[in-house]
Amino acid sequence: MNLKRTHMCGNLNKDNIGEIVTLSGWVQKRRDLGGLIFVDLRDRSGIMQMVFDNKVSEDAFKEAEKLGSEYVITVKGKIYERESKNPNMPTGDIEVFADDIEILNQSQTPPIYIKDDDDVSENLRLKYRYLDLRKSKMQKNLILRHKVAQIVRNFLSNEGFLEIETPMLTKTTPEGARDYLVPSRVNPGKFFALPQSPQMFKQLLMVSGMERYFQIVKCFRDEDLRADRQPEFTQIDCEMSFVNAEDVMAINEKLLQTVFKEALNIDIALPFDRLTYEEAMERFGSDKPDTRFGFELVDLGEVIKDCGFKVFTSAIESGGAVKAINVKGHGDQFSRKDITKLEDYVKNYGAKGLAWLKITEEGVTSPIAKFFTEEEMAAVLKTTNAEQGDLVLFVADKKQVVYDALGHLRVEVAKILNMLDKDEFKLLWVTEFPLFEYDEEEQRYAAKHHPFTSPMDEDIELMVTNPEKARAKAYDIVLNGYEIGGGSIRIHSSELQQKMFKALGFSEEEAWEKFGFLLEAFKYGTPPHGGIAFGLDRLVMLLTKEDNIRQVIAFPKTQNATCPLTNAPTFADERQLDELSVRVHIKE
Amino acid sequence: MNLKRTHMCGNLNKDNIGEIVTLSGWVQKRRDLGGLIFVDLRDRSGIMQMVFDNKVSEDAFKEAEKLGSEYVITVKGKIYERESKNPNMPTGDIEVFADDIEILNQSQTPPIYIKDDDDVSENLRLKYRYLDLRKSKMQKNLILRHKVAQIVRNFLSNEGFLEIETPMLTKTTPEGARDYLVPSRVNPGKFFALPQSPQMFKQLLMVSGMERYFQIVKCFRDEDLRADRQPEFTQIDCEMSFVNAEDVMAINEKLLQTVFKEALNIDIALPFDRLTYEEAMERFGSDKPDTRFGFELVDLGEVIKDCGFKVFTSAIESGGAVKAINVKGHGDQFSRKDITKLEDYVKNYGAKGLAWLKITEEGVTSPIAKFFTEEEMAAVLKTTNAEQGDLVLFVADKKQVVYDALGHLRVEVAKILNMLDKDEFKLLWVTEFPLFEYDEEEQRYAAKHHPFTSPMDEDIELMVTNPEKARAKAYDIVLNGYEIGGGSIRIHSSELQQKMFKALGFSEEEAWEKFGFLLEAFKYGTPPHGGIAFGLDRLVMLLTKEDNIRQVIAFPKTQNATCPLTNAPTFADERQLDELSVRVHIKE
Repeated sequence: MNLKRTHMCGNLNKDNIGEIVTLSGWVQKRRDLGGLIFVDLRDRSGIMQMVFDNKVSEDAFKEAEKLGSEYVITVKGKIYERESKNPNMPTGDIEVFADDIEILNQSQTPPIYIKDDDDVSENLRLKYRYLDLRKSKMQKNLILRHKVAQIVRNFLSNEGFLEIETPMLTKTTPEGARDYLVPSRVNPGKFFALPQSPQMFKQLLMVSGMERYFQIVKCFRDEDLRADRQPEFTQIDCEMSFVNAEDVMAINEKLLQTVFKEALNIDIALPFDRLTYEEAMERFGSDKPDTRFGFELVDLGEVIKDCGFKVFTSAIESGGAVKAINVKGHGDQFSRKDITKLEDYVKNYGAKGLAWLKITEEGVTSPIAKFFTEEEMAAVLKTTNAEQGDLVLFVADKKQVVYDALGHLRVEVAKILNMLDKDEFKLLWVTEFPLFEYDEEEQRYAAKHHPFTSPMDEDIELMVTNPEKARAKAYDIVLNGYEIGGGSIRIHSSELQQKMFKALGFSEEEAWEKFGFLLEAFKYGTPPHGGIAFGLDRLVMLLTKEDNIRQVIAFPKTQNATCPLTNAPTFADERQLDELSVRVHIKE
Repeated sequence: MNLKRTHMCGNLNKDNIGEIVTLSGWVQKRRDLGGLIFVDLRDRSGIMQMVFDNKVSEDAFKEAEKLGSEYVITVKGKIYERESKNPNMPTGDIEVFADDIEILNQSQTPPIYIKDDDDVSENLRLKYRYLDLRKSKMQKNLILRHKVAQIVRNFLSNEGFLEIETPMLTKTTPEGARDYLVPSRVNPGKFFALPQSPQMFKQLLMVSGMERYFQIVKCFRDEDLRADRQPEFTQIDCEMSFVNAEDVMAINEKLLQTVFKEALNIDIALPFDRLTYEEAMERFGSDKPDTRFGFELVDLGEVIKDCGFKVFTSAIESGGAVKAINVKGHGDQFSRKDITKLEDYVKNYGAKGLAWLKITEEGVTSPIAKFFTEEEMAAVLKTTNAEQGDLVLFVADKKQVVYDALGHLRVEVAKILNMLDKDEFKLLWVTEFPLFEYDEEEQRYAAKHHPFTSPMDEDIELMVTNPEKARAKAYDIVLNGYEIGGGSIRIHSSELQQKMFKALGFSEEEAWEKFGFLLEAFKYGTPPHGGIAFGLDRLVMLLTKEDNIRQVIAFPKTQNATCPLTNAPTFADERQLDELSVRVHIKE
């Protein structure tokens, strides 16, 4: 390197005309035109047009003739105002006439184009991730991710939170998802587990009087992957002592408000909206409702209970529900064929069918109209607030199926109608979650959050008398239909903890076996405490308006938990496995 | 919780007299004295004396009678000036007369005392780490660690570095230390490795045009542990493009200067001292010299080569060296018995013996004096600058043994003389490291740093003609005798990389097998780049003046790589191992 970079391409503009600058970067494009060579030079900040003119420098011109795409160069020259400006380019008013160039490295023809709309398979993008990450959009995503992490850290530090690192090589998580295991060489036959979350450690830090803890930390779950899941993911993890749920929610609202303001310059009003779990299910059929649009669930149980349509009445009679959504004003955008597609869609969620009615100029059209008296139909229309132009979609089934089917359907319909505006951010809390959920497989109640989640004070008796009704001091934060974070106030009294274990069907022995060290710790002065954890990947995905967390992770895994770039995972040496006291044993 | 904390104990002082405050925390101490109950209340910020007086509140007094050590309480009361002030306590001028108290939790008698000088075994401290972390010193250590990480992140962000997360589940490190492996469930028989460092990924990020990367990141090495080693450790990892070694060193000097200023309010002058590797070895017998004191190595080869002491002459004749350190002015502090102990000490480093001479009022005393002519002795004294009061210690052996023995001896002597002042911070760069070291076991040259380290421009030919003499563009940063960081400029030309692999004895095929994806990446426009990595644990250990990195890690492992708190690692379920396609197989 003989030439030394003085500026970044994207920081230059008309004010710099006349200056001598030295720029470094990659050749985005080269065009030879009438004795001149034009080169678009790209660095992390942007692109600058460089002009090589035989009359300015013969040597530089000759070097420029060698340039190909993605060559790495440093160029020195003077900034001029362009004759033909390019308004699509931030630096489009100016260009640099080169009088010196140094070729720092060559490039073979890259297997993928360095442009945002390069339409190649994701597998190829991941194999050549280092080229994929040269794309402007990917760089912007990672820059925003960096910014968000910085904003979070500075906000929490200023609020007195300490970032404290917890172990990566730790112990199996009882009651959790599947762990990643790590054989211990020094302790043959034993295994560490990679953490699913620092839950136990952060509670221990509260026991240790750290009072306010946070960590932006990698967590691991060996589960089958979905679009927004990765084997390793990053959590913004917080815990506080001497607080109640309101305190935790208040500070985290401020945190998110700060993130939106400083990262995207978007103002978010406080406090956030709140829904109880029950209300969220009743109105939106989901505990993470997207509230950017309406199409809320309407209950028709009262209205149709005596009607002649057996599908509806038998659902009610067997303890289920009949609910509907009104696709207000968009009835004419759905043909019968479209509605059949919607019916197929809700079948994915266990619904047996999708009843519907439309109101057009001619009145009500509906395959089920014949089952209703005039008064019944009037009541249905009134309850669903159905008017001309509307489409009402009905599901009758077990309650959970109705919620699930209509909850997803309202989002699907909104998607079809192009109503999911990525520039709109709707944040809300969902509170008062059930404390338990029934585990059919194990025939017992399991903790919905985890076994250290505190019940609501008024529901402590229900833990014994009616566990299904007991609510937790738990809260999720929802953004545009995604759960981006969740937490709870924890149990800090050992009496209540015993009650909890009893409700979960654990003997004292079992409880100690699973959670011994935490229970031991709780003997020595545990303060009231609670916290929250955000999924950083998902949050940044929404902030960057991407559909997939792999777009905001530098080196993600495929859905098969492999890395096409490094080919990880790989086979291990016999010798290595011997040292670790393990052998491969693949079941047929 | 009925009472709501309004202040932290440690933030209150005389200015708050007359205020009503509500404080939360732990009972550090309770004393009953003449109808009053005094309670030292502790939170993360400090300690406040609370006074319970029957006449102020009968109810509060009665509750206070129940309090034991480490009970968790909230107390409301008014701040008064103390009659008998405690100058040893930051809040010793004031006390709070309680009129309300809420006992939030009880505590059994803790198994270790919550005080800094609690002299219990480290194993007990680690088992009850949550109590150990209540100690003021431990809290201060973790607070400083948090601060240092924040300072580093803010400094680097301001300098345009992006924190980019690299994978934890990745691929075996060729040419590295022993890896931790993680079986893949989805890819039976295959394993991920936990990263020893993000080296390959950070270089790929430079290929991808990220230009300035950093990360504070967990790394893993499955090596046998020492006082300053842990299975998982934290690195401050940086990489930059379009830079030379001077650029990397300059920005990292500024980084450390900022850390010292903002964390400890200590001014560090720039630029740091520099020593080449050769000079460091010659003068200090170490590539990470402690330069807080002298006792530098002096070469006596010329002076003693013809003397009558066979131990010396035969060392020289067989290609070794004779060197000495002068323990200037401290001769009378070392008896013959002390010197025998020093001799035992150097034997740990392979030395066969330790010759010595002292100069007292009576002249030279030395068991080896008789082997020297008067002129020879005069020359020895002159070369070692020996004067009355000095003790000169000699080692004659193979060069490496001489360096190693005297390099350690000078530190040991300084330690005995109490010259290792932890308040003094001596930072220096060691540069021009050898590119290779000879691997006796494999009978070939191995990269001293790693195979992507660039040779110095003037030494490229030496890679072939005289590999031992070839120097690298590598630099370590040394603080008080500890290597706290190290890095290098990397090779970015594929031609030079081929040469490097050839020098390491790899066939092209082997090179591709080991480093294929990086070599592939290097085809597509790799910029010149280089970086550095700091050991955060070790840096914070030195900043907190601790002797052991476990003092600055919340939940460290023992030297056996176990965790006495959680009992990790543990045995795994058969079912779990089946799913992972591995079995335990312990060799006899």
